[in-house]
Amino acid sequence: MSDVLLSEADMNFLVFDWLKLEEHLEGTDFDRDTAEAYFELSRKLAAERFLPHYKKADEIEPRLEDGRVKVLPEIGDALAEFRELGLFGANFSEDLGGMGLPQLVTSASYAWFAAANGSSVGYTMLTGANARLIAAFGSDKQIDTFARPQIAGEWFGTMCLSEPQAGSGLGDVRTVARHDGEDELGQRYKLTGNKMWISGGDQDISDNIVHLVLAKIPDESGKLPEGTKGISLFIVPRTLPDGTTNDVAVAGLNHKMGNRGTSNCLLNFGENGGATGWIVGEPGHGLRQMFMMMNEARIAVGFGAAALACRGYLLAANYARERLQGRAPGKADGPPIAIIEHADVRRMLLVARSYAEGSMALCLLSSALVDNESDPEDAALLELLTPVTKTFPSEYGLKANDLAIQVHGGYGYTRDFDVEQLYRDNRLNPIHEGTTGIQAADLLGRKVLRGGAGLQVLQKRVAATVGAAREIDGLREEAEAVEAAIQLVSETIMAIASRPPAEMLDNAASFMSGFSLAVVAWIWLDQAVTVAGLGNDHSASDVFRKGKVATARYFIWHELPHAEPFLAQAASDKDTIMALEAEAF
Amino acid sequence: MSDVLLSEADMNFLVFDWLKLEEHLEGTDFDRDTAEAYFELSRKLAAERFLPHYKKADEIEPRLEDGRVKVLPEIGDALAEFRELGLFGANFSEDLGGMGLPQLVTSASYAWFAAANGSSVGYTMLTGANARLIAAFGSDKQIDTFARPQIAGEWFGTMCLSEPQAGSGLGDVRTVARHDGEDELGQRYKLTGNKMWISGGDQDISDNIVHLVLAKIPDESGKLPEGTKGISLFIVPRTLPDGTTNDVAVAGLNHKMGNRGTSNCLLNFGENGGATGWIVGEPGHGLRQMFMMMNEARIAVGFGAAALACRGYLLAANYARERLQGRAPGKADGPPIAIIEHADVRRMLLVARSYAEGSMALCLLSSALVDNESDPEDAALLELLTPVTKTFPSEYGLKANDLAIQVHGGYGYTRDFDVEQLYRDNRLNPIHEGTTGIQAADLLGRKVLRGGAGLQVLQKRVAATVGAAREIDGLREEAEAVEAAIQLVSETIMAIASRPPAEMLDNAASFMSGFSLAVVAWIWLDQAVTVAGLGNDHSASDVFRKGKVATARYFIWHELPHAEPFLAQAASDKDTIMALEAEAF
Repeated sequence: MSDVLLSEADMNFLVFDWLKLEEHLEGTDFDRDTAEAYFELSRKLAAERFLPHYKKADEIEPRLEDGRVKVLPEIGDALAEFRELGLFGANFSEDLGGMGLPQLVTSASYAWFAAANGSSVGYTMLTGANARLIAAFGSDKQIDTFARPQIAGEWFGTMCLSEPQAGSGLGDVRTVARHDGEDELGQRYKLTGNKMWISGGDQDISDNIVHLVLAKIPDESGKLPEGTKGISLFIVPRTLPDGTTNDVAVAGLNHKMGNRGTSNCLLNFGENGGATGWIVGEPGHGLRQMFMMMNEARIAVGFGAAALACRGYLLAANYARERLQGRAPGKADGPPIAIIEHADVRRMLLVARSYAEGSMALCLLSSALVDNESDPEDAALLELLTPVTKTFPSEYGLKANDLAIQVHGGYGYTRDFDVEQLYRDNRLNPIHEGTTGIQAADLLGRKVLRGGAGLQVLQKRVAATVGAAREIDGLREEAEAVEAAIQLVSETIMAIASRPPAEMLDNAASFMSGFSLAVVAWIWLDQAVTVAGLGNDHSASDVFRKGKVATARYFIWHELPHAEPFLAQAASDKDTIMALEAEAF
Repeated sequence: MSDVLLSEADMNFLVFDWLKLEEHLEGTDFDRDTAEAYFELSRKLAAERFLPHYKKADEIEPRLEDGRVKVLPEIGDALAEFRELGLFGANFSEDLGGMGLPQLVTSASYAWFAAANGSSVGYTMLTGANARLIAAFGSDKQIDTFARPQIAGEWFGTMCLSEPQAGSGLGDVRTVARHDGEDELGQRYKLTGNKMWISGGDQDISDNIVHLVLAKIPDESGKLPEGTKGISLFIVPRTLPDGTTNDVAVAGLNHKMGNRGTSNCLLNFGENGGATGWIVGEPGHGLRQMFMMMNEARIAVGFGAAALACRGYLLAANYARERLQGRAPGKADGPPIAIIEHADVRRMLLVARSYAEGSMALCLLSSALVDNESDPEDAALLELLTPVTKTFPSEYGLKANDLAIQVHGGYGYTRDFDVEQLYRDNRLNPIHEGTTGIQAADLLGRKVLRGGAGLQVLQKRVAATVGAAREIDGLREEAEAVEAAIQLVSETIMAIASRPPAEMLDNAASFMSGFSLAVVAWIWLDQAVTVAGLGNDHSASDVFRKGKVATARYFIWHELPHAEPFLAQAASDKDTIMALEAEAF
């Protein structure tokens, strides 16, 4: 069973039926057949080259030797094959050396690799996001020098934001960039500072490493600009174009609970006079530029979490069909039954599935919106949903992995079963690329209270789904519930907006919880509507259709109602926790 | 900060003020001073001998060498000191070689050790529960031979229930016990079979190991009795009274996610003709007898989970007071602030605290009920609350440990910080000694639907707390909420009781979730009432009182409301999940 990754039936349903991939392919060189071939290739490579070292990469962590990080060679081997097949550049345009595939295709492909081995494929995600940022904001020469080798998969990329004293607080970045002249790559700087939590910060499996580094340029008196507006972005390659090694040292490796195949480093820039870097675009634009990479990484984190959740669910469902234990209620004299026949095991499986497949659907929806970003409505909805796409899979996918362990009983707590590692791996996701708290503040503050366009699009699309569901037997009550939940979200926002500005974000995390349940309930309802519209001749099996609709209804009946207490908390003005002394905790 | 274990102020409040330990001590040789001295001793021993090898016992797992399990020597050293101080026998009567301390005292002491190193102190819990069972049901000679050396801490004990093919389904136990004669230790049997998940199943730190083994006696035709009624209980020592080694082999060690210091074994009994064992009491009484040990172990699991949660909360609160990051809302130009000044961090801390201290209070309440078991009301309430005492701390304590990681950000995901290990350790607790699903079926089936006496006591005690809270400024609204929740529990039970018998337990887990939130909300309200009654001259600090009441109100405002959707699910008759084919999952 260890070759179970994702449900092919579900991925096909989500991509082709629900999100209508063929519409995305119009006007491209690709059609359904080529997309299916691409998915087939991805599944095969994931199962044959990424999955086999999943456990080994957990057991044999990256290690520091003579100042360099050594990772498990199998990781490099798998990524070499990924490179040889051209997959690094799949969603880059052909003039940049890519394949020009829509994001929805490459994201669905990424999900297979993330299910097989998220920490190995993580290097490709960072590399792609890095190259995309350089391609968007860098000069032609910078693109040729630093983006193209990443699109080809020969060099890997990193994003260097956090510092030991400033995790999420980027305004406090202290890395200094001093001007050092100009050359064909642009304005050249010498960087000095320490960067923490750098995924892929060092490794021995790519020819070069391209660091994208946030730093501040001092004024004439040597003072650094305050806050996030003074942040600039620099390209700092490990090996310089002249072949010499840049002044970037690995100061330490973090030893993580999971996701261990991705090395995670503390990097010291400029221990010997300054690391050479070239500014991207104009000074002071660094954070805004980096947000492009962060938004891509946030959706990718959602995919990683959703994939772990889906794989855990499938492993648990298979185990529950095979493992015999106990008797049917009232049949003590009967034969032992498979544990999937116990109501509580089914409940756990349905809950896990509703989180896992709901998460995957949300992530794929966001990828579809990326493809349609030229449509202002889709762009606004993507902005709104990006923090949710990062957070719901991270938080609820982890719960799904928790349930997958529970279905396995004691076996699930041992390292002999992959569900144990899936859970440890997934625990990272609510933390990196902006914690759940950061995402919640982004959602409520920037996207809802100071935005609003995305919310209108959401309301419109929910109304369309609800309208369609009302026409379908067995979905009417569910349609009412989703409509009421979105209405409650609106009322909650009005209540929050009437509070003193300094307190509006106090319960942002509760708003995120309630809002994301409502969004995912809509996504489930919309999937059920799609199922109802599948023709009798459609390839989706009867059992798939029934399972899908049952999961949708289950989520709307039993998970969505928790949105109410979360939203009540978000709207509450009775919290006095800020008045408590810090010592009262 | 690694020497942070539990809050002394909170433990003193719960034990002395809330549960009125001094009333438990009436009629004993102990008073408040001796109890305080015992707690002081426990804290010191836990901090100085158990905590120092917490991480090391995780890194260096038990290993199998030449058929024996070797554990980290520091575990044996710590337990030797525990033994030398007489702590193994603390809650046994003096005529059995114990100290005769009330359960509430020894449980509160246990909590300190469980916070420091749950897997090391786990050996003492199993040993005490084993000895107590033999003392209750064994013959005098069995007690002298097998219980007394455990009460003295020289031998350790295990409980051998599960088998590889029968985890929670004990009716399917296949271990066979064939009659082999009679001697001064009673009816002697030869046992053959495999036992899985045996904590402390083998180790090299006690002189002998006393296994309590569930097995079945074949009838004359060699057939084993069906179901749980045919189960008998046997004492199977590793070393026999004549000094020879019994026929018990370690067939394997389980490699766990956490809680690694406690060895966990697959044991083969009778590979060479049969392991010698003596029956305890009458044939067929095994499961009933074992329930005594299981009930004790279940409450101990609750303590273990609560202690991990409390320690994680304290580590997180300390970290949040020290770690500087970000700015106060609207003060971007101000200095960096401690993260405890961020509303979302406070929310996480309050949630974690409400779970952690609520769990600890629930466990201590159950221990107080054990002391008063001669009172039929207390005995009935203990029966009702035992599955909740196992489950709420296991499920919500784990959530508290999850939040402790989240407060630490990336650091919390590294093995450099103890919160990472606390989380992995706590993940065991919803599984062993009866999974959450098993506990939920016990609560709803045996304790509520087929019982009811405990529920009446609960309702009476909740009414008393609500009545008192109504007289206190700042607790009136909270009193109404708790009263309404308990009322909703009653209505839910009536709705469940009106369903077809075969479906009544389908949503037992949801009932457990809703019921336990209501119970813990009552416990929080009752603590707040106790705080309000503390005199001005009481030693509890102002900041402690404020924090306690704020946490109580927070739990009742924002956590208790989730009981409603859980109870609605428990009462729901719209689930059709049993009608789905197994293949639809």
